[in-house]
Amino acid sequence: MADHLARAVELALRGPAHGPNPRVGCVLVAPDGTVLGEGWHRGAGTPHAEPAALDDARDRGHDVTGATAYVTLEPCSHTGRTGPCTDALTRAGVAAVRYAVEDPNPLAAGGGEVLRSRGIDATYAPSRAAWEVNRRWLGAVAHGRPWVIAKWAQTLDGRTAAADGTSFWVTGEEARAHAHGVRAEVDAILVGTGTVRADDPALSARPPHVAEPHQPLRAVMGMSDTFGAKVWHDENAIAIRSHDPHEALAALEAREVRTVVVEGGGTVTTAFLRAGLVDEVHAYIAPAILGSGTNAVGDLGIGTMGGALRGQDVTATALGVDTLVTAFFQRGPQ
Amino acid sequence: MADHLARAVELALRGPAHGPNPRVGCVLVAPDGTVLGEGWHRGAGTPHAEPAALDDARDRGHDVTGATAYVTLEPCSHTGRTGPCTDALTRAGVAAVRYAVEDPNPLAAGGGEVLRSRGIDATYAPSRAAWEVNRRWLGAVAHGRPWVIAKWAQTLDGRTAAADGTSFWVTGEEARAHAHGVRAEVDAILVGTGTVRADDPALSARPPHVAEPHQPLRAVMGMSDTFGAKVWHDENAIAIRSHDPHEALAALEAREVRTVVVEGGGTVTTAFLRAGLVDEVHAYIAPAILGSGTNAVGDLGIGTMGGALRGQDVTATALGVDTLVTAFFQRGPQ
Repeated sequence: MADHLARAVELALRGPAHGPNPRVGCVLVAPDGTVLGEGWHRGAGTPHAEPAALDDARDRGHDVTGATAYVTLEPCSHTGRTGPCTDALTRAGVAAVRYAVEDPNPLAAGGGEVLRSRGIDATYAPSRAAWEVNRRWLGAVAHGRPWVIAKWAQTLDGRTAAADGTSFWVTGEEARAHAHGVRAEVDAILVGTGTVRADDPALSARPPHVAEPHQPLRAVMGMSDTFGAKVWHDENAIAIRSHDPHEALAALEAREVRTVVVEGGGTVTTAFLRAGLVDEVHAYIAPAILGSGTNAVGDLGIGTMGGALRGQDVTATALGVDTLVTAFFQRGPQ
Repeated sequence: MADHLARAVELALRGPAHGPNPRVGCVLVAPDGTVLGEGWHRGAGTPHAEPAALDDARDRGHDVTGATAYVTLEPCSHTGRTGPCTDALTRAGVAAVRYAVEDPNPLAAGGGEVLRSRGIDATYAPSRAAWEVNRRWLGAVAHGRPWVIAKWAQTLDGRTAAADGTSFWVTGEEARAHAHGVRAEVDAILVGTGTVRADDPALSARPPHVAEPHQPLRAVMGMSDTFGAKVWHDENAIAIRSHDPHEALAALEAREVRTVVVEGGGTVTTAFLRAGLVDEVHAYIAPAILGSGTNAVGDLGIGTMGGALRGQDVTATALGVDTLVTAFFQRGPQ
C-alpha cells in the first residue's frame, strides 16, 4: 500500500505547482495487486486525478470493479469545473479508496464520508509526503487566503541595500536563477509601488533552461504613481491601491491566487510579517558585509528575543557563493 | 607521488589545530615505492614531522638512505624548540624532498634552498589540500598577527539581540555545540568588556563528547570594570586595556596566539571589521525574525553595495534548525 501511495505522490508531482487546484495523483490497483490505471491532475479545467486514472484503466482495457484507488488527496464530492470524483469512483465500481490527505476545502470536503455512505471502504491513510506536495495549497485553503512566501536577498548582516540605496546585485547569478524558478511555481508576485519606482523590475519568471515558463500575475500594492513601469507592459498585472496586506491578499484571493511571493521592498515585507501573514520565508544570503543600509526586516513591535518569530522545517542550500535559507512560519500536521 | 602527499596530509591532520606551530605530516618512501616511515607534528615542543618520520623508519628497522621525503610544509632550517629539519634529513641520507607548501615564516623559511645547496633534490610540489590544513596558521604568519575569526549568532534578519538587550538563546543546542568545537581548535577567544558585563560568559570550550578539550586563552579588551566575572576564575585569561584591535592582536601575538575567535559584542566585531582585521566569519543564523534590536555588524563606513566586504570559499551547514555560514575574507593562493 505504501508503494502505491508513493507512486500516487510521484504522479501528483507531474502536475503544475501553480494554479487554483492542488496537485493530486491516483493509482488504481486490482485485488491481486495489478496496477490497472494511473492518473494525475494537470491543472484547472482538466480532469481530476481519479477520472484520469479511470480513463487510463479503460484505455488499457482493464475493468476496475472491486479495485482499490490510492489517491494523494480526499476525493472531491462537489461539482466545480468538473463533476464529483466520488461519483466517478462509485460508477466505476471501485471497492476501496485510500486517501492520504483530508480535503480542507469546505466546498469539496466530505468525499470520504460520501463514499463510505455508499458502502465503499474509504479510509484516510495519512502521508507526510502527500501533504508536502500541497503544503502551500493546503495552507491557503485552510486560511481562506493566498499562501505568502516572503522573499528577499540580503548580506550576511541582514542588509538589502546600502546607505546610498544601491541593491544591485546583493546575490549572484545562481541565486537569481533559483528565485526565477520559484516565480514560475507560484500564482502571483507582489511588490510595493516603491520597489517599482526604485528598480522598475519586469517581475517575470526567467528560470534557466525553461523555454516558456508559467508567468505569475504581477501585483503592485501602494499609492505611488507607477505609470509607464515595465510591470505594466502586458495585461497580466494588477494594481492594488492599498497599504493593507489583508486587502492585498483579498484582491489576490478573488483571482484564485493560492500562492504569492512577496518580493518587497522592506516596507511591504515588514507589513506582511507584522500582520502575521507570512507563511514561508526565502532569504538569499550573500557572503557580504555592509554594516549599514536598509535592514531586510523593519520594526515588528517585537521587543524581546523570546518574542521573535520562529520558523521551522528549515532548509539551507548553497547557490554559488550564496546561501538560500527557507523556513515555514505556519505549522504543519503534528 | 600524489598518494604519498595525500597520506602526508592525513598525518598532518592528526596534529592539534591550535598552538603556535603548523600541522605537518611526512612520509618517507624508498626508491622502490616502499613506505619506510611516517610522522606528524604533535604540537610545540615535540618533534617536527620529519624527525618523527625518521624515528618511525628507524623503529621499523629501515635504512632511509636514498629515500624521498613527502612533507606537507617546507622543512624548517632553523633551531627553535627543536633543531633544523633540513639537518635531520641531510644526516639521514634522504635523496629527495617534495614539499607541498612553502614556509612563509621568515625565521624558518629557506629550507628547500638549504637542501638543494647540499645536493638534495628538493622540490616545491604545490597542494591545495596541504595548504588548507594550515590556512589559518599560514595567514597568521604571513601577516605577522593572529588569524581572526569573527563569530556571532544572529536571527535571519541579522539581529544579535532584541530591543530589550536579550540575546539568549538566538540559536539552538547544535549551533552552540559547534561553536564550542571551534573554540577547542583555536588559541584564544576575545570579547569586549561590555559582553563580559552583560553576559558574564565562561568562554570555555565544551564540545560534546570530548572529555578534556583544549582550553583557549580568554582575552577581554576594553576599559570597563569586569572584576569578579567568570572569565577570571582561572589564570588562563588576559585583560587588554585598549579599544584598538591592532593593540589587542599585538598582545595576543606576543603570547604566540595564531588563531583567535572574536566573539563580540557587536562593537568589538565591528571594530575588527572596520580595521580590515577579520580573516574569516562564522555566522550562526537562526530561522528567527526580530525586525529590531542590535544588528550583528555596525557602521563600517561603507556607503554603497559595490563597497561591501565580500567573502569567498563559503560553506553553509545545517545545525538543527540553524544554519552556519562561514566565509573567508583573506585571499588564498590564486
